[in-house]
Amino acid sequence: MKHDIDPLLRERGLAAAVILKGEFPNPTFRYVAGPPAAHLSTGLIVLRPGTKPFLLHGGMERDAAGETGFERAEYGDFSYSKIIEQEQSSLLAHAKLLQKVFERLHIASGQVLIGGIMDVGRGYHILNRLRELVPGITLAQDADPGLFHQARLTKDADEVAAVRAVARVCARAFERIRQIIQRGRLEGKKLKDSDGWITIGRLRAEVRRVFFEAGLEEPHGNIIAMGRDAGVPHNAGNDADVLVEGKPIVVDLYPAQSGGGYYFDVTRTICVGKASAELKELHALVREAVDRTVETIHVGAAGRSYQERVCDLFEERGHKTIRQDERLEEGYVHGLGHGIGLEVHERPHLSGNVANKDRIEAGALFTVEPGLYYPSRDVGIRIEDVIWVKPDGAVENLTDIPYELEIAPA
Amino acid sequence: MKHDIDPLLRERGLAAAVILKGEFPNPTFRYVAGPPAAHLSTGLIVLRPGTKPFLLHGGMERDAAGETGFERAEYGDFSYSKIIEQEQSSLLAHAKLLQKVFERLHIASGQVLIGGIMDVGRGYHILNRLRELVPGITLAQDADPGLFHQARLTKDADEVAAVRAVARVCARAFERIRQIIQRGRLEGKKLKDSDGWITIGRLRAEVRRVFFEAGLEEPHGNIIAMGRDAGVPHNAGNDADVLVEGKPIVVDLYPAQSGGGYYFDVTRTICVGKASAELKELHALVREAVDRTVETIHVGAAGRSYQERVCDLFEERGHKTIRQDERLEEGYVHGLGHGIGLEVHERPHLSGNVANKDRIEAGALFTVEPGLYYPSRDVGIRIEDVIWVKPDGAVENLTDIPYELEIAPA
Repeated sequence: MKHDIDPLLRERGLAAAVILKGEFPNPTFRYVAGPPAAHLSTGLIVLRPGTKPFLLHGGMERDAAGETGFERAEYGDFSYSKIIEQEQSSLLAHAKLLQKVFERLHIASGQVLIGGIMDVGRGYHILNRLRELVPGITLAQDADPGLFHQARLTKDADEVAAVRAVARVCARAFERIRQIIQRGRLEGKKLKDSDGWITIGRLRAEVRRVFFEAGLEEPHGNIIAMGRDAGVPHNAGNDADVLVEGKPIVVDLYPAQSGGGYYFDVTRTICVGKASAELKELHALVREAVDRTVETIHVGAAGRSYQERVCDLFEERGHKTIRQDERLEEGYVHGLGHGIGLEVHERPHLSGNVANKDRIEAGALFTVEPGLYYPSRDVGIRIEDVIWVKPDGAVENLTDIPYELEIAPA
Repeated sequence: MKHDIDPLLRERGLAAAVILKGEFPNPTFRYVAGPPAAHLSTGLIVLRPGTKPFLLHGGMERDAAGETGFERAEYGDFSYSKIIEQEQSSLLAHAKLLQKVFERLHIASGQVLIGGIMDVGRGYHILNRLRELVPGITLAQDADPGLFHQARLTKDADEVAAVRAVARVCARAFERIRQIIQRGRLEGKKLKDSDGWITIGRLRAEVRRVFFEAGLEEPHGNIIAMGRDAGVPHNAGNDADVLVEGKPIVVDLYPAQSGGGYYFDVTRTICVGKASAELKELHALVREAVDRTVETIHVGAAGRSYQERVCDLFEERGHKTIRQDERLEEGYVHGLGHGIGLEVHERPHLSGNVANKDRIEAGALFTVEPGLYYPSRDVGIRIEDVIWVKPDGAVENLTDIPYELEIAPA
C-alpha cells in the first residue's frame, strides 16, 4: 500500500526514488500523485524517506500540480529554457535538469532509484549523463519485486472500492452479451435477430457501449474470440464471425477507469445453445481448477504453488501443460494469474517459473485464470476471476458473473 | 516516412535498431509493425539495413505476429523460461534474451540504437547488462531528431487519410457543442435547456459520445475550460461550471483512433452570447497570428521562426511573451505548435528555443496554436489548426471548423 513506500525506501537503503513522467501512461506516477496525475503531462516526482514528495511540473499545469499537495516547482524555476539553450540537446538538458533538482533537494550521495515510463534508449543516455554530473550518487538496481511494485501489490480500501466499481460494470457487459444471445434465434446453426446476423463485432460494440456509458475505457482492447480463435489465448477474435451454435466463445474483458484509473479483468467462456459433451467436460474441468485454487488460497503461500497444482490437475486428466513444454500450443499453455490494479498485469505472479518467488500477501488482488486450448479442434476455454485477500487473510471473490457455458437462444 | 527508416539506418551508421515493447503504448513499435501492434503486448522488433524486420513475440500472440509479415520468433524459441530460471531475475533474463536475439541475427559489433517505451530504471540496468554480455556493440546515442522521430515527421498518404478521418469527427464534436449552446436559453447570465443547467461537464460528455460513436478515444482527455480556467492553458476545466454569457471557453480536443492510431488536435475559443470588446479584440489578434503563420509556411523554414514572428506580433500589440520570461503566466505563454501523428506531440517543434533546429519539411503535419492568457481577468484564448505540407510543398489546412467566437443561444 501507499504507506509502505516510506518504510521501503528506508529498508532498501535509498536516499531517494525518482519517478520520471513523459506523455505515456505512468502507473507508478499515478499511484503516488493520485488522480491529478491525469492532468500532468510531463515532470517528475522525488521521494525521500520521511519527507513530503517533491513534484516538478510544467507551468501550464500548475492547477493540477497544486491539487497533489506536494512540495513543487516548475520547469521555469530551474530556467529550463536556458538549460536547453546551453546544452543544445533535449537529452543533455534533461540530465542537467535532474542535476539541478538533486542540488536543490540536497541529494548528493547514496543510492537513488529511478523509475517512470519513457523511451528506454533516451532514458539510458540521460541516466549515463546524470551519473557524470552527480558522481556521488549510485543508480540503484531495484530489488524484485521493485519498490513500487511491492507497495502496489497490496491494495487499500479505496483501491478495492475502485476495482469493485469496475467489476460491476463488467458484470453488466456480460449480462448484455447474454441478453443479445437469448433474444437471438438460430437460422441453421447461425444466430440472428431483427438487426441481422449476430457477429463477434456486434458483441464487441455492445460491450464497448456498456463501458462507455459507465466512464470506462479499454486501453488494451478485449478478447471476444470464437472456435479456433478462442484456442489461441491472445487472439482478440474476428469481428466478422457470425455466432455459431455450439462453438466456444472466450470473452475476456479488462477495462479501466478513464484517465488512468483501476482495472478489472474477467473471462467467461460461453456458447450459443447446446455444447458438445467434450466442451462441457473441458469447461467443467477448467471450472474445477478455478474452484480448487480459490478454495486453497491463503496468506504466505507461494504464487507458483497454485500453478503447479493446476498443472497437476490438468495432467492427471490427460492434458499437456506449459511446465512440460514452454512452446506448447495445445493444452494448458499459460500461467495461472497476475495482480491487477493500475495496470492489468501487476504482482503477484501466479506463474510456474521456479524463479517466481511471489507469495500471497494480505491485501493482494489478483486473477485466477486457468484455460484449456485446442485450436486444431476449434476449442478454447478460459475462466478468470479476481480474488482479493483481505487484510485479515480472508479470501473474497470479487467476480459476480455466472459461469454458465450454454446460453439458449429464443 | 516509413521508407526513410532504412536509408536513415545507413546514414547514421547503425548496425541495427531495436524497439522494445512492454505493456505501454509504443508509437514507434506501432509505426513499424502497423495495426497488428494493437494485439502484441510484449516483444521487440530488430531492424537492420536492407533486411526484413525481425519480430520477437509471445506464443499466445502468434496470430497478430503473423499479420506483420516480419521474420519472427517466439520467446519459447529462445527457451525464455529456462533463461529466467537460470538468471533468477527478470531483468537479467531480459538482457540475456537480447544477447540471444543478437546472436541469432549475427549482430556482434557496431552501433546499435535501442528504443521503445518501458520503465526507465529497468531499461537502464538491462542495457548495462547487455553491454557486458555483448561487448562488441555500442549503444548508439540517437541524433536529434531521433531516427524514428525523423521518419515519423513526414506523413504518407495513408497517414494523412487517417488524420483527416479523425479531423472530420472533431468537426462533428464542435458542431454538437454549437448546437447545444444554440438550443439553450439564458436565465440571467447562465445557460440552461430542458435538461437543466448546461455545464462544462455536459459539453464534455457530449464530445465523448461523438468520439465513442466514431470509434475514437481520448487517451489524454481534453480541455473544455471557462473563464479563469481557460487562462491556464492545460487546466482541463471544471465539469460543474455552468456556462455563463460572455465568458471565454477554450475547447481543445485531441482524440485518437482506438487501438493506438492517429491523433488530431484542434482548439477553438467560444463564448455564449455576446463577447466583450476586449475578448473580441484578443480573439481577432490570436486569429491574425494563426493566419499570418499559415500564410507564410514554406518548406525549409525554421520552425522557431514562426514562433518568433508570433511573439513579434503579440509584443507589438502590447502583450508579454514567453521569449521575454519563461515563467510568464499572463500573455503568450507557450510554443506555437508541434507535429501530430501516432503521438499528440511529435516533431517538428514550432517552439522558440534557439536549440530548436527543426525545419518545415515536405510531408510534415503539425499544429499552429497561438493563444493569449489573462487568468487574473478570467480570460484565455487559443486557436489551433492542423497544417499539412504536401509532398509538392503546397500548404493545406486540415481543419474545417468555424472560428466564430460568439454563439447565440435561442
